Amino acid sequence: MPELRKDPIVGRWVIISIERGKRPVDFISDSRRKKGGFCPFCPGNEYTTPPEIMAFRPVGSPPNTPDWTLRVMPNKFPVLQIDGELKKAGEGIFDKMNGIGAHEVIIESPDHNLTLSTMSQKAVEDLLWAAYLRLTDLKKDTRLKYVLVFKNEGEVAGASLEHSHTQLIALPIVPKLVKEELDSARRHYEFKERCIFCDVINQELGDGKRIIYENARYVAMAPFAPRAPFETWILPKRHESMFMPPDRNFTDLAEMLQKILRQMDRILDTPPYNFVLHTSPFYDEVNEYYHWHIELVPKLTKIAGFEWGSGFYINPTPPEESAQFMRAAKI
Amino acid sequence: MPELRKDPIVGRWVIISIERGKRPVDFISDSRRKKGGFCPFCPGNEYTTPPEIMAFRPVGSPPNTPDWTLRVMPNKFPVLQIDGELKKAGEGIFDKMNGIGAHEVIIESPDHNLTLSTMSQKAVEDLLWAAYLRLTDLKKDTRLKYVLVFKNEGEVAGASLEHSHTQLIALPIVPKLVKEELDSARRHYEFKERCIFCDVINQELGDGKRIIYENARYVAMAPFAPRAPFETWILPKRHESMFMPPDRNFTDLAEMLQKILRQMDRILDTPPYNFVLHTSPFYDEVNEYYHWHIELVPKLTKIAGFEWGSGFYINPTPPEESAQFMRAAKI
Repeated sequence: MPELRKDPIVGRWVIISIERGKRPVDFISDSRRKKGGFCPFCPGNEYTTPPEIMAFRPVGSPPNTPDWTLRVMPNKFPVLQIDGELKKAGEGIFDKMNGIGAHEVIIESPDHNLTLSTMSQKAVEDLLWAAYLRLTDLKKDTRLKYVLVFKNEGEVAGASLEHSHTQLIALPIVPKLVKEELDSARRHYEFKERCIFCDVINQELGDGKRIIYENARYVAMAPFAPRAPFETWILPKRHESMFMPPDRNFTDLAEMLQKILRQMDRILDTPPYNFVLHTSPFYDEVNEYYHWHIELVPKLTKIAGFEWGSGFYINPTPPEESAQFMRAAKI
Repeated sequence: MPELRKDPIVGRWVIISIERGKRPVDFISDSRRKKGGFCPFCPGNEYTTPPEIMAFRPVGSPPNTPDWTLRVMPNKFPVLQIDGELKKAGEGIFDKMNGIGAHEVIIESPDHNLTLSTMSQKAVEDLLWAAYLRLTDLKKDTRLKYVLVFKNEGEVAGASLEHSHTQLIALPIVPKLVKEELDSARRHYEFKERCIFCDVINQELGDGKRIIYENARYVAMAPFAPRAPFETWILPKRHESMFMPPDRNFTDLAEMLQKILRQMDRILDTPPYNFVLHTSPFYDEVNEYYHWHIELVPKLTKIAGFEWGSGFYINPTPPEESAQFMRAAKI
C-alpha cells in the first residue's frame, strides 16, 4: 500500500509509492528506455490496460473494445489505490496516512500520432468533459478531498508513453500549492470581499500587455510573476470557483486551450509541456473567494536545483514579451 | 536592470532577468548547445571572467592570474546586479522591486576534470570556507536579506559549464521555501520552546532507519517525506541557526558532504545533482528556532508538470530504503 507522508517543517505531503519501489539500478536503466514499439493506448490493445472506467464510443459498442474516441481507465501503475479504509497515523513527530486515492488515465484520441494541438477541437472538448465527469464521480467518495488533473506532454515533461494522454490523481488531502492559493484567496476575500483572481483578471484585461487571447468566456494570459518562460494561465472571466461547463458547454475553453497549444507549437517548435488544473476542493466547491484555472508551462529551461530547494525562480523572458510573441504567432 | 516580482496569490518572488531577455528561438537552439572546447574556469583563462572577488592562492600571487586553488568571481551573466538603490514599487495589485543583489561563482578546483566527489577533502573544506566568507561579506550590505548557496552538478541538473562550480545568489528578499521553513519553525518554537529540526534529528537518531551517516558534529539522513529518491539532508547535530564553522573548522562537514556524494556516485552511477544551503536570514541570524542545513538531491526522476503546478511529489523510493542503500555503498 502506498503511503502519504507529511513533511513536519513545511507541511508538504508526498506520496511514497512503495509498490513502485525503485532501487538504484532502476534509475540508471531508466535513461536507456527505448521508444516506439507496442502501444497499450492504441485501439486493438484494450486488453492490455485495466478495464475502462468510461469511454466515449458509439451506442452498442461494448467496453474495452476498439471504436472509442476517448477512453478513461485506472493507471496500470497507480501511485495511490482506491480500495481500503483511510487510516491516519502519527509516528512521533511525523504524520502519515495510507495511500487511498485514484490514479486514472484519459486517452484523448485513438490516433497514436495526434497531440492536443493537432487533434480536432471536438476531441479537446471531450477531454474537458471526461475530466469534469470523472471529478463529478470521484466527489461521491467521501475519503477524497481533491482531484488533480494534469498532462505531461513529451518525454522531457515526464510522459512515459508517447500516445497522448491526460492523467488525474484523486487525493485524501489538498496539494500544498493549491492550499496556499486557497488560504491566500480566502484572506484577500475576508479583507476586500472580492476574489483575488477576479481582481488580477480585471487589472490584466484593463492593461492588456500580458493578455494572450480572450474569447467570450475565458482569458489566457502570462502571469505577472511567471516561474518560467511562456508560462500561461487560462481562467474563466466570470467568477467560477469550481471547474465546470457553463451552460453545459466546453466549446470556448477547448477553443482557447487548443489555440494556446498551437501558438506554443508554432513559436517554440512543438515543445514538451505540462499543465495542471486548479479547482476548489470537494468540501468547498462553491465559494466566493477561489477561481479555478489552468496553469500551463512549456518545458524550455531546466529546473535547476536551487529552484527545487528554494521555491525561488529565475525567468529570462518577461511575461509582457512572451505574451507579445504568443499573440503574434501565426497559426 | 532585472526585476523581482511577487505573485499576488501565493506570495512567491521570481527574478525576471530582462537582460538575459530570451526570445523563442533561443530556447530552441539551447538544446543543441555543444560540449567541450574553451573553458573560462580553467587556469590561464582568468582574463575571460569578471575580476575575482576572492581567491585562495599562494602569498604574493597576484589576483586574476593562475596558481589559485579556489576562485570566486561575479557571474558573467548575473541574474541580479549589485549597483543601484533598492526601489520597491506597486503596479496596481502587483508588487515588484528592482533586481538588486549579487550572483557569484565559486570554482572549487583548478582541475577541469574533478568533481566535489573526486577532489581532495581539503578542496571541499575550502568551498565551505569560501561560502562562509562570502556570506559574512555580503551581510554588510543592508539592502540584502538572504544568500542562497547552491550547486548544479551535471547538465541535466542545470549546470551550463562542465568545470565544477558552486554559485550564490544574494537577495533583497527571503526565498519562499526558506520563509515557510522559518515561519513553521517559529510557530513550533512558540508552542514547544524547542527547535523543530532538533526534534526531528533527535527522533531520527533514536530510530536510525533513515540515518545515512553521522560524525561528531553532523548527521546525514533521508528525510521522512522526501520529494525525490535519495533526497538527503545534512544538519549539525547541535542547534545552530546559521551556517558557520564551529571552532573555526569545516573538517567534519567537508568529510560528510564528500562521503555522501561519493556514496551517490557509487550506487547511482555518478548522477547529476543539486544542493541548496538553507540558513537563517541576515536580519535574524542567531535564534533558537531555526536550524541551518543542506538539502541535496540527485537528479534521477523528471520533475513532472503536476509537481511543478501542485507542490505535490510522488517518490517511488521510500527513504528507509534509500538510506539503507546509501549506508551499504562501498566507497
